[in-house]
Amino acid sequence: MSEFAIGIDVGGTKIATGVMDRDGRILGRHISRCHAGCEPPVVIDAVLESAHAALERAGMAMSKMAGAGVGTAGHVCFERGLVLTNSNLPGWEGFPLRKLLEERLGLPVWLDNDANCATWGEYQFGAGRGARNLCYITFSTGCGAGFVLDNRLYRGSTGTAGEIGHVVVDPDGPLCECGKRGCLMSYACGMALSRMAREHTEAGETILLSQFYTSPDCCISGEQIAIAARQGDRLANELLETAGRYFGIGLSTIVQIINPDRIVIGGGLIRIGAPLLDPCMKALNENIHPVLVDSAQIVFSQLGDDAGVLGAGALVWENHGE
Amino acid sequence: MSEFAIGIDVGGTKIATGVMDRDGRILGRHISRCHAGCEPPVVIDAVLESAHAALERAGMAMSKMAGAGVGTAGHVCFERGLVLTNSNLPGWEGFPLRKLLEERLGLPVWLDNDANCATWGEYQFGAGRGARNLCYITFSTGCGAGFVLDNRLYRGSTGTAGEIGHVVVDPDGPLCECGKRGCLMSYACGMALSRMAREHTEAGETILLSQFYTSPDCCISGEQIAIAARQGDRLANELLETAGRYFGIGLSTIVQIINPDRIVIGGGLIRIGAPLLDPCMKALNENIHPVLVDSAQIVFSQLGDDAGVLGAGALVWENHGE
Repeated sequence: MSEFAIGIDVGGTKIATGVMDRDGRILGRHISRCHAGCEPPVVIDAVLESAHAALERAGMAMSKMAGAGVGTAGHVCFERGLVLTNSNLPGWEGFPLRKLLEERLGLPVWLDNDANCATWGEYQFGAGRGARNLCYITFSTGCGAGFVLDNRLYRGSTGTAGEIGHVVVDPDGPLCECGKRGCLMSYACGMALSRMAREHTEAGETILLSQFYTSPDCCISGEQIAIAARQGDRLANELLETAGRYFGIGLSTIVQIINPDRIVIGGGLIRIGAPLLDPCMKALNENIHPVLVDSAQIVFSQLGDDAGVLGAGALVWENHGE
Repeated sequence: MSEFAIGIDVGGTKIATGVMDRDGRILGRHISRCHAGCEPPVVIDAVLESAHAALERAGMAMSKMAGAGVGTAGHVCFERGLVLTNSNLPGWEGFPLRKLLEERLGLPVWLDNDANCATWGEYQFGAGRGARNLCYITFSTGCGAGFVLDNRLYRGSTGTAGEIGHVVVDPDGPLCECGKRGCLMSYACGMALSRMAREHTEAGETILLSQFYTSPDCCISGEQIAIAARQGDRLANELLETAGRYFGIGLSTIVQIINPDRIVIGGGLIRIGAPLLDPCMKALNENIHPVLVDSAQIVFSQLGDDAGVLGAGALVWENHGE
């Protein structure tokens, strides 16, 4: 089997593609501005273009590749190679993305969700190396998790294991995009921070945050909230504390149900650092059974955005003696 | 390898022992009034006596056994055969129960926690047969879970996977015996029902429940609450609804994190039926992501109290081509 593969991460804002070797080195890469929110034919064309561009930069031919792995947002049936849901976008429900890409690329293709790919990437090449039971969890626009259990990628029965973002932490809490109330994602992700910042800004409760409030449909980012917090805005600090605390409660749930030996935290929000992560670690330790304290090592992603690309590509070798 | 084994369930109120065959038939059984709350030497003597009594009833000799499996309450290190914690009982911490039982029985012994044993029992011989990703969860004095994932018993890194009872569902909720606040077990188990019933009875809020309140340290059972509920006691019905609702939220957490294809619910409380289980199923469906509705089949234990005995005994063959 060839030692080279193409890894493709169809994310919410871009398609990232890398030609990689089996040691996790990226030999050529390409970023497309197309993303998972586009229609299927547009995404397929962009994936093709991106794959060819990455191959060209690596100086390699498609025929040298063992296959391609594709990670995408939303719910995916790995075994059948279907996209089950991708938010509420028309055209994606039940879409046979794997089959169509196999025809167009002329390669075997593996399709999985982006969280599973990032988990597999960190496990194979990053901060998850050497763990036996690994949880990778993103603290990002949304939040989601993936698992390697007893050294195998664990997908669950319909490919949707790790939906920590939709675990209900407050049945009377805010409405989530999924239609339920009080999902972890209502508190512990970038979208939740934006919503909370907007609510407080509209109510006139914060001066420093209001500098970022340019229109009623604007999105105050986690980084902007961190800026206001560093400037001494009490409310901005409280929002980060709330998000961090709930994320820590989410980690405690994972620790108690999965009992991993390592948790890798990824996602852009971790760059905010202490104002978000201190309350997170405090809540984690306060909300686990005493016997589980220190049972899991908590580390941060080593691969960043490359985790999804490398993990997708490495699916090609998943069941071949890894 | 012999087709016979001894399964031993060291529970909170008794030690149940069975001589079994590989098809899950119990050929001889014995119940001892000794239990996990006794001191280690007392438990070891009782296990020995119980094993010999069960063998006598089966008409078989110890030498015909492939081994013995022992399930016990508390945290257990399967690999090292140690009891890590057993509530707060002195003498059990780090106790090498497997080694001492091997010496006394003259057989290889496997030691695991009771939830894992019951899970393995239902998976091998009961309501979990044919599932690929199974969760067994008890709705009993306490509540806990065990998992078979991709057809293997999943124990976690320190043997404590499945601690659903200590997942925090309300960080400001009642104090749990573990020292945290608002564990699922603060609402969704027999102990929680007793506590809530006592609180309301002491406050004079219920007439029908007070018939069971004989002293300040009495324990009003789930079954007694069910009796009062059937007699029309509004508060008793509300308590069952609260417990059922939180148990359903616990199930929703399992469904979203593990994505099992089947959940087996065991434990004595399920006999209360609709007043407890209707709010449970309602909460389950209200608190999972729409894509996961109907993803897991929900069934009840087929083996009842025998699940722990049969699962413990079947550990003997766990890694021998099951």
